[in-house]
Amino acid sequence: MSGTVTITGVDVHDVRFPTAAAGDGSDAINRGDYSATYVELRTDAPDGVFGAGFTFTNGRGNEITCAAIRALSHHVVGRTVGEIFAEPVAFWRSLTADVQLRWLGPEKGVIHMSAGALVNAVWDLRAKLEGKPLWRLLAEMPTEELVANIDFRHITDALTPDDARAILDKGLTGWEERLAGIERDGFPSYTTSVGWLGYPDDKVRALTRQAYAEGWRAMKMKVGGPIDDDVRRARIIREEIGPDALLMMDANQVWDVDEAIANMARLAEVDPYWIEEPTHADDVLGHARIARAVAPIRVATGEVAANRVIFKQLLQAEAIGVMQIDACRVAGVNEVLAEILMAAKFGVPICPHSGGVGLCEYVQHLAIFDYLRVGTSLEGRMVEYVDHLHEHFVDPVRTRDGRYLVPEQPGYSSTMRPASIAEFSFPDGPAWR
Amino acid sequence: MSGTVTITGVDVHDVRFPTAAAGDGSDAINRGDYSATYVELRTDAPDGVFGAGFTFTNGRGNEITCAAIRALSHHVVGRTVGEIFAEPVAFWRSLTADVQLRWLGPEKGVIHMSAGALVNAVWDLRAKLEGKPLWRLLAEMPTEELVANIDFRHITDALTPDDARAILDKGLTGWEERLAGIERDGFPSYTTSVGWLGYPDDKVRALTRQAYAEGWRAMKMKVGGPIDDDVRRARIIREEIGPDALLMMDANQVWDVDEAIANMARLAEVDPYWIEEPTHADDVLGHARIARAVAPIRVATGEVAANRVIFKQLLQAEAIGVMQIDACRVAGVNEVLAEILMAAKFGVPICPHSGGVGLCEYVQHLAIFDYLRVGTSLEGRMVEYVDHLHEHFVDPVRTRDGRYLVPEQPGYSSTMRPASIAEFSFPDGPAWR
Repeated sequence: MSGTVTITGVDVHDVRFPTAAAGDGSDAINRGDYSATYVELRTDAPDGVFGAGFTFTNGRGNEITCAAIRALSHHVVGRTVGEIFAEPVAFWRSLTADVQLRWLGPEKGVIHMSAGALVNAVWDLRAKLEGKPLWRLLAEMPTEELVANIDFRHITDALTPDDARAILDKGLTGWEERLAGIERDGFPSYTTSVGWLGYPDDKVRALTRQAYAEGWRAMKMKVGGPIDDDVRRARIIREEIGPDALLMMDANQVWDVDEAIANMARLAEVDPYWIEEPTHADDVLGHARIARAVAPIRVATGEVAANRVIFKQLLQAEAIGVMQIDACRVAGVNEVLAEILMAAKFGVPICPHSGGVGLCEYVQHLAIFDYLRVGTSLEGRMVEYVDHLHEHFVDPVRTRDGRYLVPEQPGYSSTMRPASIAEFSFPDGPAWR
Repeated sequence: MSGTVTITGVDVHDVRFPTAAAGDGSDAINRGDYSATYVELRTDAPDGVFGAGFTFTNGRGNEITCAAIRALSHHVVGRTVGEIFAEPVAFWRSLTADVQLRWLGPEKGVIHMSAGALVNAVWDLRAKLEGKPLWRLLAEMPTEELVANIDFRHITDALTPDDARAILDKGLTGWEERLAGIERDGFPSYTTSVGWLGYPDDKVRALTRQAYAEGWRAMKMKVGGPIDDDVRRARIIREEIGPDALLMMDANQVWDVDEAIANMARLAEVDPYWIEEPTHADDVLGHARIARAVAPIRVATGEVAANRVIFKQLLQAEAIGVMQIDACRVAGVNEVLAEILMAAKFGVPICPHSGGVGLCEYVQHLAIFDYLRVGTSLEGRMVEYVDHLHEHFVDPVRTRDGRYLVPEQPGYSSTMRPASIAEFSFPDGPAWR
């Protein structure tokens, strides 16, 4: 895998897209300019191959994650790809458990997201060097090598290395048949582009009708405004999509625990498939109480779950019926591997969080790897889809009839177009001047 | 209270003390240069009064919290003290739920710690304007005003405004008698200066002997190294302090859940009073399992508990027997008020985390307020004491016979000496050049 290629430098770009003005991406608690703290790992490879990674932010403050990536970069620069993957947990901990920087999380928020951008860039680099899309690199990887990439510290009470080995070995059987299926049919997904809180009723109805015509049979709306408004908008969407399509709801954490239970009793009339982020993202016990109260409606969460320890507890407490991993909130591919395996151990399907900047590009690889090698079923699996900002990526997601097509180019689909970086760099790019 | 005083600007200082070289502050997971992201709120007050606040970091990365404070400063500049305290929850949320910056936490890590520095500076400013130490400002505050300073969102399933009112009203009875007692005797504390992991056995023995001679009857050691070493060092300390003094242990999160249970079975022979941070700080369910297994040894945690929602769950799950609030990990005084009241509701004593830079200066006010108005008992209450870096503060903590003396100067004891700021500013101060 060209393990002698050395990382010679880290370029950090503060890239911001002026989405706030349009109301795109508005929900009960977030409203901003979708941004990426984008990094490229320069190398000494003769063909100029580089690793690309990013973390997603919401506009203001993207300079803070840029500063955090710079503070972490010395753990990456000067290392060869071979060295990193010879001792992957030691590498991962150099970023997540730096004896001085760990205090700034620990393992959460700015410093952990920034570690994630770098970890993902390293995986993109390796996948490019091997000439494979990331999902294939992972799906073809021997079980022992996958296990060696996971830091089991703090999760052995839920998943041991032996548990992981058993799951991954089992996934070796039939993965090529499963691949043939999704290469033919695509990977199931759902759309969140119909019901942002910032949209008026007629726009919600028109977008829902359009999405249904395009083939989408699962759609997500935002809730968490005045409950009567939420009910009215939910009825509009249910009218448009009929009784069989799935309608998911996302409260973006605005409710208290008892409030979530009361509001879902009102919204139950439109048969929601899941309620996402019904309360504060850190409230494992609260999610567990809500899950018991709103069943059979599933509780879903994860887009801001800080790390694998939060996911571990959500699973242990039976607090979630759907696990929404994120590719760059946590510290990159290594940590997501732990999360995917824990979900399999506890029998909870993964439906990755997506949208933002480049999240669709990232998570398609993770969902496909999960299906091929870990979860091995499409039952209850869907990748979120938001139709924003794909044009800024060199290898953007492709969809057909409401399904993702399997990505084919080498890497993690995380490389941004140079023209987009230049145009939207903050504060000096032409878009911001 | 001179409510018309306007905050005209925010000065942010990256102050770092080169403590790493001495091994001071070394434990199983942290080792760094104790640092403060220090802010002063300039005002238009004719006497030049300003508000001082800070958050503590561990060296590298202090520039990241500085950047975060700058990103939040526009919520503070231009506001009067009167406006802020007329709608304190709205002010607090402007910092903690900014629609763009919240994504960087949410309510955790860099962005939340930085909000805490600003919130604390505002409280310091108000206390100075009223000519009172912060503990007195809070202890004398009418119940309704205290309640109005707390954001109950996401904690009403554990503490309602009515719960808070009942506790605070009850605390009005006898607070002046309680004050007279601690003004006479000081406030109980314990020392962590004896058993850092970086210290050799003979230094541990000498420091323990010295601390005992100085009057300390409660001491904390670090554990989490090889278990045989931990047992050997624990025996040394127990030999020196005799059977009656309290010996606390702090594992700084290195253990897995089952490992913590096994290691505490070994360490039980020296009769530990509590085990602090036995596993990952986010692992509420893990702490609860450990607490059941190691009883009657208490589980203590909190120095990196990200926010009030984590503390809420630790209390709900009966995971802690001692609650260690921190003054500047969470978003300042307002959030700590919620935590102190939740602890009282659940009957768990508070022993604040301290040490670092200026944490002793901060938390003495919180512990005294808790005793005077909320907890109303000294049973099981102790403030951590670490004998580091107090000389850099204008109003440093004072101790006598292992007890804190009640601070008397107006404010939150958070003002740093100008000469220290200049000397230790990073990277341009003389100490770093």
